Amino acid sequence: MGDDGRMHAMEDDESAAADQIRAIDIYPLSNYYFGSKEPLIFKDKTLADRVIRMKSNYAAYGLRTSVEAVLLVELFKHPHVLLLQIRNSIFNLPGGRLRPNESDIDGLKRKLSRKLSANGAPDASDWEVGDCLGTWWRPDFETLLYPHLSNNVKGAKECTKLFLVKLPENRKFIVPKNLKLIAVPLCQLHENHKMYGPVISGIPQLLSKFSFNIIET
Amino acid sequence: MGDDGRMHAMEDDESAAADQIRAIDIYPLSNYYFGSKEPLIFKDKTLADRVIRMKSNYAAYGLRTSVEAVLLVELFKHPHVLLLQIRNSIFNLPGGRLRPNESDIDGLKRKLSRKLSANGAPDASDWEVGDCLGTWWRPDFETLLYPHLSNNVKGAKECTKLFLVKLPENRKFIVPKNLKLIAVPLCQLHENHKMYGPVISGIPQLLSKFSFNIIET
Repeated sequence: MGDDGRMHAMEDDESAAADQIRAIDIYPLSNYYFGSKEPLIFKDKTLADRVIRMKSNYAAYGLRTSVEAVLLVELFKHPHVLLLQIRNSIFNLPGGRLRPNESDIDGLKRKLSRKLSANGAPDASDWEVGDCLGTWWRPDFETLLYPHLSNNVKGAKECTKLFLVKLPENRKFIVPKNLKLIAVPLCQLHENHKMYGPVISGIPQLLSKFSFNIIET
Repeated sequence: MGDDGRMHAMEDDESAAADQIRAIDIYPLSNYYFGSKEPLIFKDKTLADRVIRMKSNYAAYGLRTSVEAVLLVELFKHPHVLLLQIRNSIFNLPGGRLRPNESDIDGLKRKLSRKLSANGAPDASDWEVGDCLGTWWRPDFETLLYPHLSNNVKGAKECTKLFLVKLPENRKFIVPKNLKLIAVPLCQLHENHKMYGPVISGIPQLLSKFSFNIIET
């Protein structure tokens, strides 16, 4: 897994970075403009539809990878994560499934543009994709996601990767009318599995190695 | 793990893989030798003693930082985390509090030597400290730990940093007689707050951005 050259290079990076805590610049929510566009059509009406589609896709393409973005803004001097809410209930990170052979970064930019940018805007796909924060695995079609693979599982069916996406100082978010973009503070996400599920409620932990520079403008 | 799922994930990513998914080499538990040494004397007999000592230390030195190590071994083809068990109940990561002005890395090496090495052995403090995986904060003396600081908290009282510490292919662990060193699989830690607390039960998430090279020897 990975050639020798690359492995050595990584070890060098690691020792250099070992004692540093990286700071992320975050900007006030009020720096961003929020508008809306035509609704997004969802492929799956029910969970059963989703399982059927997941199975046929797995048969055709094997493991499916989803990529999701952690976008941060400041509100009340506290970091907030941007979530998309569907039908007043389900919360999702912006993102989605990769096409076959699509790279993580290209796919995430495409999905972010589709869900958060005006169609055809010049900066639609201009997103700064940073670190991979974590990976979650779905060992079988109808199971929950886990942050590890068990050794008794032959092959995972789905993999979800979370990336930190750095926002510029200003940006327009243009969101499909049937989705709501909301900002939720880290302290509300932490351990709140019931409302946000295991992936989103774990974000405060995944971000805990960073410090935040809250930029007042 | 040598698992289909993870292998595909690596291949699909070629363009982005270099800086996105890092592999950690882990070696079988049987590569390591485990011995014991004289018991460690604990400073606090009860939780109340601990709070009293924390308060007087805070008054004298301000925010106190603890550093803890995530050490990984392979068992049954699954990554396991090494934990120290005290009095058949509490589980801890190996580590402890820094001295005033001590660096994270120096302090962690000192603590690992004290808890896991033979006293005075030539390689006692030879530990390869890698990435900071996460940080936990104690906003007040008697509260739980959180992976974020709330904006209504003036100053945290304690901070705990988790570091990945890479084990060599072979090593002797010499553990105080009143502690037990045990290897617990990631799948048992995940979401098991009740037994391991929030910090240890979150380790599988913090490690989920890495892949594991299980080295058969």
